[in-house]
Amino acid sequence: MSLLDYFKISKVGTASLAKERLQILVAHERTSLNQPTYLPQLQKELLEVIRKYVNVSQDAISVSFEQDEHQETLELNIVLPELQTKNT
Amino acid sequence: MSLLDYFKISKVGTASLAKERLQILVAHERTSLNQPTYLPQLQKELLEVIRKYVNVSQDAISVSFEQDEHQETLELNIVLPELQTKNT
Repeated sequence: MSLLDYFKISKVGTASLAKERLQILVAHERTSLNQPTYLPQLQKELLEVIRKYVNVSQDAISVSFEQDEHQETLELNIVLPELQTKNT
Repeated sequence: MSLLDYFKISKVGTASLAKERLQILVAHERTSLNQPTYLPQLQKELLEVIRKYVNVSQDAISVSFEQDEHQETLELNIVLPELQTKNT
């Protein structure tokens, strides 16, 4: 199953809520842990980019960060205010 | 299955390749298609942010963009040069 398929499947369950949502995932597969992670800093900058396009308040964003031996994963879930995209 | 679980599963298959990879997914669930998409522009800006942290050549990036009635999905797959993160 590809990751795009995953989104298609998960879409079915949430479409009925009729909310605009933006989900961002960053997965960093690493071969060595002897380097500092940059995902937390990256997260801040990603949100700054997102805010150029949509009005997002801080409490509309939920963030998960997981880290294990081989991978770091950052997940941002954003509930968008309806029809308030800045470029319409 | 959560999306984080998906990454954990897919990790098993690729870890043996010992490549550093960065995967970014953006899924935009939309309630209306009467607005322009901003994902292609967002993609450019995301890559600019990523390049602050890692040296990535254009040919190391593969991009998928899918769009249907309810959702747009942008997927960036980046193979990172080994041990060339800018902040080490």
